[in-house]
Amino acid sequence: MTDLLLTGVRVWSNGDAACDLAIADGRIAAIGPGLSTDAPEVFDGRGCLVIPGLVDAHAHVDKTLWGTPWHPHQAGPSVLDKIENERRVLKTLGLSPEVQSARLLRHMVARGTTHVRTHVDIGPDVGLAHFHGVQAMRDSHRDWIDVEIVAFPQTGVMIRPGTLELLEQAVREGAEAVGGIDPVGIDRDPKGQLDGLFAIAERHGCGIDIHLHDRGDMGAVTIDMIVERTRALGLAGKVAISHAFCLGMLEPARLDGLIEALLELDIAIMTHAPSGPTPFPPIRLLHDRGVRLFSGSDGVRDTWGPLNTGDMLERAFLLAYRSGFRDDPSIEIALRMATYGGAAIMGAEGYGLTVGSAADLVLVEAETAAEAVAFHPPRRLVVKRGRVVARDGRSLLPPAA
Amino acid sequence: MTDLLLTGVRVWSNGDAACDLAIADGRIAAIGPGLSTDAPEVFDGRGCLVIPGLVDAHAHVDKTLWGTPWHPHQAGPSVLDKIENERRVLKTLGLSPEVQSARLLRHMVARGTTHVRTHVDIGPDVGLAHFHGVQAMRDSHRDWIDVEIVAFPQTGVMIRPGTLELLEQAVREGAEAVGGIDPVGIDRDPKGQLDGLFAIAERHGCGIDIHLHDRGDMGAVTIDMIVERTRALGLAGKVAISHAFCLGMLEPARLDGLIEALLELDIAIMTHAPSGPTPFPPIRLLHDRGVRLFSGSDGVRDTWGPLNTGDMLERAFLLAYRSGFRDDPSIEIALRMATYGGAAIMGAEGYGLTVGSAADLVLVEAETAAEAVAFHPPRRLVVKRGRVVARDGRSLLPPAA
Repeated sequence: MTDLLLTGVRVWSNGDAACDLAIADGRIAAIGPGLSTDAPEVFDGRGCLVIPGLVDAHAHVDKTLWGTPWHPHQAGPSVLDKIENERRVLKTLGLSPEVQSARLLRHMVARGTTHVRTHVDIGPDVGLAHFHGVQAMRDSHRDWIDVEIVAFPQTGVMIRPGTLELLEQAVREGAEAVGGIDPVGIDRDPKGQLDGLFAIAERHGCGIDIHLHDRGDMGAVTIDMIVERTRALGLAGKVAISHAFCLGMLEPARLDGLIEALLELDIAIMTHAPSGPTPFPPIRLLHDRGVRLFSGSDGVRDTWGPLNTGDMLERAFLLAYRSGFRDDPSIEIALRMATYGGAAIMGAEGYGLTVGSAADLVLVEAETAAEAVAFHPPRRLVVKRGRVVARDGRSLLPPAA
Repeated sequence: MTDLLLTGVRVWSNGDAACDLAIADGRIAAIGPGLSTDAPEVFDGRGCLVIPGLVDAHAHVDKTLWGTPWHPHQAGPSVLDKIENERRVLKTLGLSPEVQSARLLRHMVARGTTHVRTHVDIGPDVGLAHFHGVQAMRDSHRDWIDVEIVAFPQTGVMIRPGTLELLEQAVREGAEAVGGIDPVGIDRDPKGQLDGLFAIAERHGCGIDIHLHDRGDMGAVTIDMIVERTRALGLAGKVAISHAFCLGMLEPARLDGLIEALLELDIAIMTHAPSGPTPFPPIRLLHDRGVRLFSGSDGVRDTWGPLNTGDMLERAFLLAYRSGFRDDPSIEIALRMATYGGAAIMGAEGYGLTVGSAADLVLVEAETAAEAVAFHPPRRLVVKRGRVVARDGRSLLPPAA
């Protein structure tokens, strides 16, 4: 029996005709015109577009300042400046990663995000405290949103003895992937960091997702080293590189060689379209060559910079805007990165908009997917596993502490 | 007597303390704590930030497709491709510039825009039809929003004989400024175009605002020529250059020379932070040197590209995002461009947030100006000359035809 019926909606990639969409037992039960309207809950879609739940597959929910007084940005320009500033500020504020992540998640749900993959800080200074906080939040929110955790060595790996052991402990305790950060730029020991991370992944069968801000050849050489290890250990399909700024600044032949390697080993690339003049991967080119792409909000209202609403539909807009996309097919690539691309990286079960898919979906007042991205209007309805979790831009989750 | 009282608001640049703001006879009558609440209309500001009305000082409201079915983008990459495509599409659709501009204005009011300076297409193909349409719209909307018109030769000047005469006729009939476009790139006759435009400005005392997409040295030489004519004719303070992409790609010494000339002649620069890899003026540097800066939405939902919500607070976000601003003072520069900068260009009478200013203002749910830009939330209240014109993101204007 139908639990929830959406009438008069358009379904992305399903043609222009308005139809109904029936949800039963948390799944899409039927899509078509004139479905029986005897469901206990009927929602008049008024021609809105249905897209699958937004997927924020690169977040940092443990250290957001969301819900606290405005914090003027104070860090210097380099990545190291920002890391050091963050440690200072977080120590001073003494916020709870569990409460903070819950606050941000509630907002993300209101914006239509149904899946989050979050990098959680782990290191000698904070130990596993952030990880345990986010785990607790994930448990208490599992009916509202799916959360996956990457054990993330924000302060470096080899330069912080004890970090590798903590990362492995987090994986033992349930982190889905092990993270890394600038093996050359931060650690100055790419061999040490990458051998350590890949050994953890090999031992536990988890994924790998490495922050790579290092630019130009320094970034390219790091990708070479990631490729070699992925091939040697048979980890094709398990590895992602986040940011990968260097892919936006290489000579064509060098870039082409890296693309071939990414394709051979099914290594995925994450970009959130960074601000300022920072180079970033050429989305349209990588997409057309078949490289797996996904996106995320990155840090929302944290010490790294304030310009971020945590809205993945607006993020798709920014991906398209920074890429200079104007035509509908290109703009849809940006939306795919913020939906299907992230879902694939998370292995989200039954994700999609076909009958039988998990009923994780968002209603947007738009005629087409390109319009949804271009105007990113408030979400009319957000459904998670068949249940309405947000309406007219407001989450139905109880407020976090 | 107070007509409208806003209680418990924070006023931008007026310190952090919550206060009341009283409006009488269309002006700010008082700002302070504990004002008498016997006004006929009292609005609980709940700590919201008051900013002055947003100023969209570079729009193209005459040719928006707003309110019509989604139109997939079809133009080629060059400026000329986009002009030719636009002529084709507009001819086919046969929309009314009066109705279309009214549709977009209504949306802009909802987003807090109280002043618009719009470039209106004028040329041998459309004659003065767009101009007359926008004039009619301006007349019927004068209680809702201030509109200024730049007579804009979208299809070129010297390559379209008769254009100069039409531009001059528009100025005679009330256009506040005469526009131009790429004197080298489009006309290939910079002397002819610039002499023609400056002669009109000299004869009628109107302003000049030239679209300059031409890059590198081609753009820089054009600025040299604009500077020479501004100096020769004593038009300091009357000239603006829109886009000026070239300022984002010059060697420091060349840029420095141009900045000196812009300062000498008080020539203003408009940027809307273009999409894609397009270079654009270095905002922070120009601001710090004292160059007048302003911004606008440019084309909203037209044939030039779909990625634009027509929201000037989101535009301030994009200015900051593309510039890589993270600290509050830099982010506030972007907001000043979208408020005071545009108001200065338009000579907006009594614009500001002091007692005696015109009561053109916007309430935003934010603690600081930087937060307002970073999150650009829906506008709680928009006031035009003391009258509420939008509330909770919705315009109170009757729908356009």
